[in-house]
Amino acid sequence: MVGGGRDAFIGGVHRMAARLDGKIDLVAGAFSANAEKSRLSGEDLGLDPKRVYANYETMAKTEASLPEDQRIDFVSIVTPNNTHFPVAKAFLEAGFNVVSDKPMTFDLAEAIQLRDLVKRAGKVFALTHNYTGYPMVKEAREMVRKGELGKILKVVAEYPQGWLSQPSDSWRTDPSTSGASCAVGDIGTHAENLGRYITGLEIEELCAEFTTFVSGRKLEDDANMLIRYRGGAKGVLYASQISVGEENDVNIRVYGTKASLEWHQEHPNELIVKYQDAPRRIFRRGNPYVSDVAKKFTRLPSGHPEAFIEAFANIYLEAARAVEAVKAGKPIPPDIDYPTVEDGVLGMAFIATAVASANNGSTWTKFVSA
Amino acid sequence: MVGGGRDAFIGGVHRMAARLDGKIDLVAGAFSANAEKSRLSGEDLGLDPKRVYANYETMAKTEASLPEDQRIDFVSIVTPNNTHFPVAKAFLEAGFNVVSDKPMTFDLAEAIQLRDLVKRAGKVFALTHNYTGYPMVKEAREMVRKGELGKILKVVAEYPQGWLSQPSDSWRTDPSTSGASCAVGDIGTHAENLGRYITGLEIEELCAEFTTFVSGRKLEDDANMLIRYRGGAKGVLYASQISVGEENDVNIRVYGTKASLEWHQEHPNELIVKYQDAPRRIFRRGNPYVSDVAKKFTRLPSGHPEAFIEAFANIYLEAARAVEAVKAGKPIPPDIDYPTVEDGVLGMAFIATAVASANNGSTWTKFVSA
Amino acid sequence: MVGGGRDAFIGGVHRMAARLDGKIDLVAGAFSANAEKSRLSGEDLGLDPKRVYANYETMAKTEASLPEDQRIDFVSIVTPNNTHFPVAKAFLEAGFNVVSDKPMTFDLAEAIQLRDLVKRAGKVFALTHNYTGYPMVKEAREMVRKGELGKILKVVAEYPQGWLSQPSDSWRTDPSTSGASCAVGDIGTHAENLGRYITGLEIEELCAEFTTFVSGRKLEDDANMLIRYRGGAKGVLYASQISVGEENDVNIRVYGTKASLEWHQEHPNELIVKYQDAPRRIFRRGNPYVSDVAKKFTRLPSGHPEAFIEAFANIYLEAARAVEAVKAGKPIPPDIDYPTVEDGVLGMAFIATAVASANNGSTWTKFVSA
Amino acid sequence: MVGGGRDAFIGGVHRMAARLDGKIDLVAGAFSANAEKSRLSGEDLGLDPKRVYANYETMAKTEASLPEDQRIDFVSIVTPNNTHFPVAKAFLEAGFNVVSDKPMTFDLAEAIQLRDLVKRAGKVFALTHNYTGYPMVKEAREMVRKGELGKILKVVAEYPQGWLSQPSDSWRTDPSTSGASCAVGDIGTHAENLGRYITGLEIEELCAEFTTFVSGRKLEDDANMLIRYRGGAKGVLYASQISVGEENDVNIRVYGTKASLEWHQEHPNELIVKYQDAPRRIFRRGNPYVSDVAKKFTRLPSGHPEAFIEAFANIYLEAARAVEAVKAGKPIPPDIDYPTVEDGVLGMAFIATAVASANNGSTWTKFVSA
Repeated sequence: MVGGGRDAFIGGVHRMAARLDGKIDLVAGAFSANAEKSRLSGEDLGLDPKRVYANYETMAKTEASLPEDQRIDFVSIVTPNNTHFPVAKAFLEAGFNVVSDKPMTFDLAEAIQLRDLVKRAGKVFALTHNYTGYPMVKEAREMVRKGELGKILKVVAEYPQGWLSQPSDSWRTDPSTSGASCAVGDIGTHAENLGRYITGLEIEELCAEFTTFVSGRKLEDDANMLIRYRGGAKGVLYASQISVGEENDVNIRVYGTKASLEWHQEHPNELIVKYQDAPRRIFRRGNPYVSDVAKKFTRLPSGHPEAFIEAFANIYLEAARAVEAVKAGKPIPPDIDYPTVEDGVLGMAFIATAVASANNGSTWTKFVSA
Repeated sequence: MVGGGRDAFIGGVHRMAARLDGKIDLVAGAFSANAEKSRLSGEDLGLDPKRVYANYETMAKTEASLPEDQRIDFVSIVTPNNTHFPVAKAFLEAGFNVVSDKPMTFDLAEAIQLRDLVKRAGKVFALTHNYTGYPMVKEAREMVRKGELGKILKVVAEYPQGWLSQPSDSWRTDPSTSGASCAVGDIGTHAENLGRYITGLEIEELCAEFTTFVSGRKLEDDANMLIRYRGGAKGVLYASQISVGEENDVNIRVYGTKASLEWHQEHPNELIVKYQDAPRRIFRRGNPYVSDVAKKFTRLPSGHPEAFIEAFANIYLEAARAVEAVKAGKPIPPDIDYPTVEDGVLGMAFIATAVASANNGSTWTKFVSA
Repeated sequence: MVGGGRDAFIGGVHRMAARLDGKIDLVAGAFSANAEKSRLSGEDLGLDPKRVYANYETMAKTEASLPEDQRIDFVSIVTPNNTHFPVAKAFLEAGFNVVSDKPMTFDLAEAIQLRDLVKRAGKVFALTHNYTGYPMVKEAREMVRKGELGKILKVVAEYPQGWLSQPSDSWRTDPSTSGASCAVGDIGTHAENLGRYITGLEIEELCAEFTTFVSGRKLEDDANMLIRYRGGAKGVLYASQISVGEENDVNIRVYGTKASLEWHQEHPNELIVKYQDAPRRIFRRGNPYVSDVAKKFTRLPSGHPEAFIEAFANIYLEAARAVEAVKAGKPIPPDIDYPTVEDGVLGMAFIATAVASANNGSTWTKFVSA
Repeated sequence: MVGGGRDAFIGGVHRMAARLDGKIDLVAGAFSANAEKSRLSGEDLGLDPKRVYANYETMAKTEASLPEDQRIDFVSIVTPNNTHFPVAKAFLEAGFNVVSDKPMTFDLAEAIQLRDLVKRAGKVFALTHNYTGYPMVKEAREMVRKGELGKILKVVAEYPQGWLSQPSDSWRTDPSTSGASCAVGDIGTHAENLGRYITGLEIEELCAEFTTFVSGRKLEDDANMLIRYRGGAKGVLYASQISVGEENDVNIRVYGTKASLEWHQEHPNELIVKYQDAPRRIFRRGNPYVSDVAKKFTRLPSGHPEAFIEAFANIYLEAARAVEAVKAGKPIPPDIDYPTVEDGVLGMAFIATAVASANNGSTWTKFVSA
């Protein structure tokens, strides 16, 4: 692991998620840009001090020098956005597979470079757009794929949070660490990824309105946008971090010609499906009637709720499956179900397009090709 | 009543709402443009045949010729949009008070004329934006007025329906009867009115995307828009009639600097209030802790749900209070709580602005002054 | 109307319910045991003073003496429990149809007498167990009748309220006006009626635990019971008036061998149906897929919620249909769908059985035959 | 671990829960009464074959013979009920701490013996009544302890499931492995434990109705009971395994003189608190306003839902804390928050009392002292 030292939130989530299924052990890390903090974090985690590194460059180099059966199988990158790319680059070039937090890079240019690096390296690159790890999100995608919704006409994806409603210091609000966007980069990109994962729709153009409500802040803390998808579907998407009292209510509604669906991350075990001439149906995780793909990512029987960590762990499970294939000298299985470097490029293009629109008076802006 | 003959939906709702509190009796009507249908409808309703008229012109004239204590006190207009104005004009000029369905007129020019007519007539004009009749909507307004939400930053108002998801004939989809808009005129204007009623915010400009999903239809059946309010608040508003499986889910979320609120018309007895540092609170109609204004429009104790008809009836109750004042030769009470002709003008301006934006490539368009 | 004077809650509900559909007019009443209060109440209601009576005896007698086309068609009894019987008796004997609030009488003996009186009189007697007026309750009954749940195994009916959680004066807590039970008589009997209406199951025996939590109170304010139905099904039923913060949450769950259903009065437009091997289905009022019987008692399209008054009005609608038949010299239609005197007898037998069990150490007690 | 071999559900849950926080490693096991199955299960789990045992006796003995720093710290028992006691006994006598699944033993006599064994051994014994591991259940207990509900008057605890609604083979329905009860032993005891954990109330007597709905089954698959608590509070509790379409909906409502609370395991991150004169409040996990005890058992920020495994892991976390103390030669901390052997004895007494009542015609039966 790179990043995720003491006090970092997301590093602990990655560790719990990786650990859950008993297939992944944390054995090495550079947990902080501060060497001492890294050392102490490694101690907290009970690691062999020799494998707790002062920085990621040393880690990549040293681990690569270990005998093949002793070195790490992959690295998890859980640093702020501005270092995702250099860390990923270092480890890919040192011959390692990579799991990285999102947004994939600091900007789109880095994302395109990273895509090339991943292709050349032939290694696994998995991006933790964790909301696609939920079984009922996978169920939603299956329904769309099977045509149960008919043609998709409209997508409404919302991601309200309230945690930045007050003035605050966070690397997420600092353009030098976060990139050109706060709300869209941090959470809007999850909403976009979720919509694309479920529907497969591609954005053609969008019109984005960014607002910085908390004075003194340099990046937007609220973003609303209208979307035109290729093929005629329309979208409404928003990401907000100043929505007082909202916790982490990412939710999506997808409307088709035959049926519609609705999913709320805060009640993730349910998928609501609506029809014009039939009763609504509530699909619930863990039941015999859900699709095989939802079942595959389910650990507990129905009524025994699974939640955030389990969904996150599903990304790791699939990454681990790909890593095993690579270790065995086989190609990455084509049915692998984790967000890839390609998803990351599209996510960064989405951010870039939204920023361009917002900076240009919230005008309609073609999706940046990448 | 003008309109609301056999098979018309909204006429029956008006009649039930008007009748509920025992203060209003239906005594006369021109129920259809078809004289025979009007006659039969009057018969169905048990009216004195003499006061069932072949058309609204005759009704206005004849009723006005009756002795003061025998004529109608006010007329309810429940016809398609294109006749709201001429009917209202006829009755105002004949000296009657008016309750009218929305949108107020066929277009903004008529709305402005009507405003002048109402002012000159000195009569009551109440518009049935019925969703503002719900006690918990009034509670929401009170909270905003008392500053409990702090400064309002964001409004999300949604109105999804699915009833036009299939090809269909309806006067609402016909520009000659409905006006320049279908989704926005029919339901978007409710969402706009609801947001304005609760927050008092005024739209400065908006960017609207209209789509006609059902081929052959001449007006939009789906509209999404971004809104900039005077003073810096932002809005997302949509109206859709092709959202398969949605019934009548008008809902609103208002985000302030101190608290936020959420209300769903399909569960109208609850108002959810969210805070950053305190548990959410669920305000429920009929309880001792709600404001006097919510109590005033409440008929049943808590837990005995009230719903659509009762909210509609609240508009009639207030209109009746104003009519009584006018009959007694007094001014309309200043605290009257029903949508006025001014609300109607703003609603028509909203439609006109949205249509202009949509027709101009969904560009940002200043709110039409009126 | 008898009872329902100033300050009485349920009288106003009856009046709104009766008035809603425009088929019933209030024309006469004895609104209070206090003649002056009756007079003032009649004035409030705008009645002809000649038809506002000082007491029910005078009213029954005087109305009966009017020409047939001028007298009342039926009387609504909304007095405290102890006078239901004498009032009903007086009006039945004077030749009138009766709508009465529940519980039907003061005790079971009166109920049996009343049944005889109704039979002899050949008049309509409708009891306002209003919760059976909800369309989705009727839908539930249809499902059971059609066998969609299979054999019914278990019924859980709950009726928690909190309004008597503090010491209070109410005729409902006074045995001289309320009868031998408070919680069971006032609300438990609704829960029992609701269960019987939906399932058709007959109670064989029960074990009831009564508690008076508020000291000084003479009747139980909380009652829990286990039920054995004929044929082997089991039940849990409770009624509580000291459940702080509960408003009027009567709800029922019915479990069958093939499916189960759940309905909550505070969200009356939805009926939840659960299956072992299929997604839950949410049946919502006003949709094309509901049964004809639910449609028949529906006034508004789906998504335009109906609630308490409308359900109450459905009892009146059916009573009016029966009254019309009787007036026309025809028999009461056999498919009439309102709670009858027979339901009232069973309700009083239920109360008597529960009281007997509670008084006998909460032992299993055979359902009192009546 | 003892038990939990291939195909066993609960063993996997224990492993995930134990593993989640990175403090517990699985190093040894006797995973099945079938030695070969145990071997294969150990292989699946990647264990050192030397520490995969053919049976629990060998495991206890062999592990005890290892040097102190190489042997297991505690054993997890996840076998059917009839072997909980002998396995626990073997490990306690071999000097090990124990975590055991519930119900604690096959019958009450074993439970009492086990209590003595635990006391004598001075070791940790934690019982996985996992529902008490949920943060919002702990919050509920805190509220009761702080007097925020006033005096507790009534407890309604329900545990409906549907998985045994069809004929089936399961050790849980076999009295030789399950004990004298199925529904009460398997899930009713969770409901009882949950109620006791939150309220601290002690059962004085109860009246239990057992039903075996699926023919051929030897134990009850549905149980309803009325409860009298010491001090005057009353209870309704049921456990059902034939409630078609119910998944694992254990839920509890606690009514006090000042406030009431409600919690549903299928939506575990919320605790609903109701008041007579104030809006309902929804306490949500992970927020600054919850109590320290709820915070202590929380891993993720609000809105990032936690669920079943995390709650289960909280039992393991506390057990691990106690094990660490014992290893360090210190007493078990007095504030330890996991279900103890004493809870297990009370749970077995509850089962015994319910069985006695049911076998005696569902009569009121004093809580068996133990």
